[in-house]
Amino acid sequence: MKAVRFTNWKTFPEIKDVERPTPGPGEVLLKVAGAGACHSDVAIFQDYDADLPVANFLKPEYTLGHENSGWIEELGEGVSGLNKGEAYLVYGPIGCGHCRACSRGQDTYCENAATNPYMGMGLGRDGGMAEYLVVPARNLVPLGDADPVEASVLSDAGLTPYHAIKLAMRQLEGGGKSALVIGLGGLGQIAVQMLKAMTAATVIATDTKADAMALAAESGAVTVEGGEGQADRILELTGGRGVDAVFDFVGVKPTVELAQRVVARQGRITVIGIAGGQVTWDFYTNPYEAELTNTYWGTIEDLWDVAALYRDGHIRPQVKVYPMDQALDAYRDLVDGKVSGRAVVAPHA
Amino acid sequence: MKAVRFTNWKTFPEIKDVERPTPGPGEVLLKVAGAGACHSDVAIFQDYDADLPVANFLKPEYTLGHENSGWIEELGEGVSGLNKGEAYLVYGPIGCGHCRACSRGQDTYCENAATNPYMGMGLGRDGGMAEYLVVPARNLVPLGDADPVEASVLSDAGLTPYHAIKLAMRQLEGGGKSALVIGLGGLGQIAVQMLKAMTAATVIATDTKADAMALAAESGAVTVEGGEGQADRILELTGGRGVDAVFDFVGVKPTVELAQRVVARQGRITVIGIAGGQVTWDFYTNPYEAELTNTYWGTIEDLWDVAALYRDGHIRPQVKVYPMDQALDAYRDLVDGKVSGRAVVAPHA
Amino acid sequence: MKAVRFTNWKTFPEIKDVERPTPGPGEVLLKVAGAGACHSDVAIFQDYDADLPVANFLKPEYTLGHENSGWIEELGEGVSGLNKGEAYLVYGPIGCGHCRACSRGQDTYCENAATNPYMGMGLGRDGGMAEYLVVPARNLVPLGDADPVEASVLSDAGLTPYHAIKLAMRQLEGGGKSALVIGLGGLGQIAVQMLKAMTAATVIATDTKADAMALAAESGAVTVEGGEGQADRILELTGGRGVDAVFDFVGVKPTVELAQRVVARQGRITVIGIAGGQVTWDFYTNPYEAELTNTYWGTIEDLWDVAALYRDGHIRPQVKVYPMDQALDAYRDLVDGKVSGRAVVAPHA
Amino acid sequence: MKAVRFTNWKTFPEIKDVERPTPGPGEVLLKVAGAGACHSDVAIFQDYDADLPVANFLKPEYTLGHENSGWIEELGEGVSGLNKGEAYLVYGPIGCGHCRACSRGQDTYCENAATNPYMGMGLGRDGGMAEYLVVPARNLVPLGDADPVEASVLSDAGLTPYHAIKLAMRQLEGGGKSALVIGLGGLGQIAVQMLKAMTAATVIATDTKADAMALAAESGAVTVEGGEGQADRILELTGGRGVDAVFDFVGVKPTVELAQRVVARQGRITVIGIAGGQVTWDFYTNPYEAELTNTYWGTIEDLWDVAALYRDGHIRPQVKVYPMDQALDAYRDLVDGKVSGRAVVAPHA
Repeated sequence: MKAVRFTNWKTFPEIKDVERPTPGPGEVLLKVAGAGACHSDVAIFQDYDADLPVANFLKPEYTLGHENSGWIEELGEGVSGLNKGEAYLVYGPIGCGHCRACSRGQDTYCENAATNPYMGMGLGRDGGMAEYLVVPARNLVPLGDADPVEASVLSDAGLTPYHAIKLAMRQLEGGGKSALVIGLGGLGQIAVQMLKAMTAATVIATDTKADAMALAAESGAVTVEGGEGQADRILELTGGRGVDAVFDFVGVKPTVELAQRVVARQGRITVIGIAGGQVTWDFYTNPYEAELTNTYWGTIEDLWDVAALYRDGHIRPQVKVYPMDQALDAYRDLVDGKVSGRAVVAPHA
Repeated sequence: MKAVRFTNWKTFPEIKDVERPTPGPGEVLLKVAGAGACHSDVAIFQDYDADLPVANFLKPEYTLGHENSGWIEELGEGVSGLNKGEAYLVYGPIGCGHCRACSRGQDTYCENAATNPYMGMGLGRDGGMAEYLVVPARNLVPLGDADPVEASVLSDAGLTPYHAIKLAMRQLEGGGKSALVIGLGGLGQIAVQMLKAMTAATVIATDTKADAMALAAESGAVTVEGGEGQADRILELTGGRGVDAVFDFVGVKPTVELAQRVVARQGRITVIGIAGGQVTWDFYTNPYEAELTNTYWGTIEDLWDVAALYRDGHIRPQVKVYPMDQALDAYRDLVDGKVSGRAVVAPHA
Repeated sequence: MKAVRFTNWKTFPEIKDVERPTPGPGEVLLKVAGAGACHSDVAIFQDYDADLPVANFLKPEYTLGHENSGWIEELGEGVSGLNKGEAYLVYGPIGCGHCRACSRGQDTYCENAATNPYMGMGLGRDGGMAEYLVVPARNLVPLGDADPVEASVLSDAGLTPYHAIKLAMRQLEGGGKSALVIGLGGLGQIAVQMLKAMTAATVIATDTKADAMALAAESGAVTVEGGEGQADRILELTGGRGVDAVFDFVGVKPTVELAQRVVARQGRITVIGIAGGQVTWDFYTNPYEAELTNTYWGTIEDLWDVAALYRDGHIRPQVKVYPMDQALDAYRDLVDGKVSGRAVVAPHA
Repeated sequence: MKAVRFTNWKTFPEIKDVERPTPGPGEVLLKVAGAGACHSDVAIFQDYDADLPVANFLKPEYTLGHENSGWIEELGEGVSGLNKGEAYLVYGPIGCGHCRACSRGQDTYCENAATNPYMGMGLGRDGGMAEYLVVPARNLVPLGDADPVEASVLSDAGLTPYHAIKLAMRQLEGGGKSALVIGLGGLGQIAVQMLKAMTAATVIATDTKADAMALAAESGAVTVEGGEGQADRILELTGGRGVDAVFDFVGVKPTVELAQRVVARQGRITVIGIAGGQVTWDFYTNPYEAELTNTYWGTIEDLWDVAALYRDGHIRPQVKVYPMDQALDAYRDLVDGKVSGRAVVAPHA
């Protein structure tokens, strides 16, 4: 079968013919419906090298794609209760399987990560940019009748904002609350949709691109342009109280500082974007009880919730579909900044 | 000024001329915008008598009306920061003011209720069915530009469902959840609207009246008729999982039993209707971890949230407005079952 | 190897020589340290028969013992990061492994329970009353240096009260709270110890046996005898406020009714004992917002917490140890009511 | 009566004879039992001046003392249900009384603070360092039979750590958790006692003074000295996992940085000490989902909990009692660093 292979550090991936895999015990073979191309893939093949600590778990060669969906093709030993042809979303991370974090389905925080051979599918182990994909049965989340091609990207671009929002529900539940989404790429757009569906909060959104702002506005966000006075305009939208929950999907110094300027007393700033912007914090830089934190991806159970939001029509990821033989174009377009929404490789479309 | 007075047990109220009151220390005089007529008022003047324990706190004579709003007319001693002409919603209950429950603004659960002279405005102390009303300053919730006449009913018909929903947010937050609203009178309709705004849950609603069902459907509820198979039809809407949060605004035996039949594992049944229906409970009558509970009215802070939901357009109470000289018609229509939505007396409309 | 086998419905178990098992993929072979004898085992071999729905998942013949601990002897395919000789506690339930509940380590609430071949180890699948036991790796919780023989019983007698207490922490956290433990057998005693360690609550305890009361008192509980005036004496201990969290490990009608009489406003009654006592519930039988619920066993992550409480010296299960060749005496003593604390079979002691 | 008066900025207080006050409507006159001397008082009379924004609410002249207790002497108009001679603890802050924060008893976060005439008793309005004190009735928390002199300091030195701990209970509840208390002055010592009573966490404590460390060890803390390797030694005590909840009562750069080095994934750092130490924060400086926040004092309801912890024997503040005519020595000793524990002026002792 055809697969998009990460062959070496600092090397653009290539499409190769590889053996169709066989599911082991507790695993399932999926016929791939969709595999999303993510910016972190670009970091892996373009920026990383063997000297980084994280490189231990991401060593080439393998098939890329950590945002996957597909139809069940074959069950491995010991798996039952799943049927050929059914559509599933795939939880990408794979931990040791027996630590405390893995026991609750939060493989992202596996306590034995340092000794695991890989981080997940498409991350050190073969991923979904191929005709077929082997998945541990516990990593599957049913999609029912929903379109699995479009859904594929939810396993990262939906799961990551969902997990961040879930942890901020203490700040968001009830009437009269507000949320600010900074950065309206794939994740930010879905964050806006989730916040509109899951809360009664006023959702404020900001980005440097006009079309991204327009798209967020269509989803019900109040958009605020950047530039001078941005913080004041945001504060005004909250009646001066400040924003109860800020989600920063960019994470550079100016965006985190914006978050600090607008967050409300007892509010919460969650930095999701991994740009690593450094800010200063002291007792007086944030209002009383405002929390500054980060998050990373999510849990299997979260992904069940994300699938439900999708099936119930609350979220609509924007995807651009590439057939298998144009899979490398997905990454090229991503590198060139030509993708709005999310690029999905659909090998059987 | 004119006021609707509860003059004696088992006696229909009458409109009388009474002295316009003066606000005491810490109080405010409101020019009344709206005063809702509630079924519990009918119970007070029609069903109760002096022998009931609760009668101690509800002794006639006084002005009715515990769902009130108005414009500030005059400030009592020691009150500042409030301005004449501003519109406010009124939190009706008044506790001792110095117990633990009152300290957190939950006067409904005042620990000294047994020795308090009254339960609140319109409940043993003069209420809002008059041209003017005296209110403790802490019981005021600002309405800004929102219509205070329509808003008046929110202080009970909005606050009560809000408090019940807030306590069920653990069951309702996230994706793929479901809620069931039983009884689509004034409170049930607002409950549907709140659930749609505050959660991504599928909101199922049921009532015996077709027009009430239609109204709930307009607000986004999936309506289910009563009769044989009702529980099965509800369960089917939840994919067989059961309902995560049931709100029973009726509270007779058949409605509580319906709740027990459809509640999900780890779900919650909240009985708000005070009909007192008795059911049987044992380890096997409810799914694991499903909670059976009740609630009563809410807190001052809850009312701030309710006002925000109203100001943000998330809830739209259905009211029928009566001028002062037709105030008794409001109660007559209520007794006769002629009011859909909520009857509001607007003395200055 | 020797094993205590459940051979047929309504038949006392017998010790048999069976093949030492081999761990499959994802599994581990434990050399058994301890296997607790539980009242539910007695129900299985003495009371149940093939006509019960639950019998489908409990069909003989298999080795009993669902409260287990042991030392790692051998790793199955695909298991790494665990070492021979290390001591582990065993989470007993085994679900489908790929539903939402299993994904979060709550196999007790497996959504595919109806089609699973068994409920867990010692419950339809070979359990720990044998020299060796096969366990899925994810069901293992490390014990470090702590005594694994004594610890074995924690996987049910510790996990069940812990899960119930965890769900009641909203009622128990903070100062001035109170808890009531009804029924001071193995689970109730550990509940008392956990409540003392995990909360600042006044812990009230009651049982019909004086020695059980004395043991609870040693753990710091205030004990209250049964009989007339019991509810009043309990209420007095709470300053008349009522009990914030009641845990009923008996579950007969009089104990659940006691719980209803003493629970506080906004409190919680958790019935854990499966005696099935039926009570009446209506809007007026419980104080405002008091919750009536049940629970069943717990999650894998809960068991990590229980192991930590044990390793930190906060809980000390009372066990009586039986060697393998006297294993049937453990069940005989249990049937005869001769066991105080918990009977543990230790095949290698 | 005699009172300790703050007479002017940058001026040591003096004892003066002033009129015994009269309680206004809704107020109570207390015969003062104890009034704690706090480091923030020293800041007011020694460091602040009229140019600081906060000085608007702290303008001399008034009686110092914001940590107070006393016996009821006289009730103002409209107050009932309180009896002469009963002992009460006093919640110090006084907000506008009608904003959202005040409605829930969190006057510390009054939304009209900018226009309030003072911050509370002893903070712009007459405080407790006098023979008598006027207190709003809602600010009273009953002490029952407990010693009110010793208890006085709890209204700040108990309430502040309690509020911080309460907000960290999500991190602390359950088994196997850990807490770190940095700074073992009056607040830190009570924090250690509260954590031992309210949680099963391993409580680690650190300070530069050996006697403070010894006192914390007596309360059950594991103490860790400063200096090289301190973070590693703390991490080792948590099995390498990190600390679930860090409470920094100092708040200088090195202590906040220590907190950042040892906090666990999903943990929480609360800075309570107002030293204003500045640290750097970015996506990679804190483990995933670890929260960095601050807190300030607490709510009236929190103080009810603190009083209960004291009455139940869970906390024992260390106080040194000064009679009224030596009241200035209390501040002199505080300035000179001669007070271990808390200095209390007891005018009627």
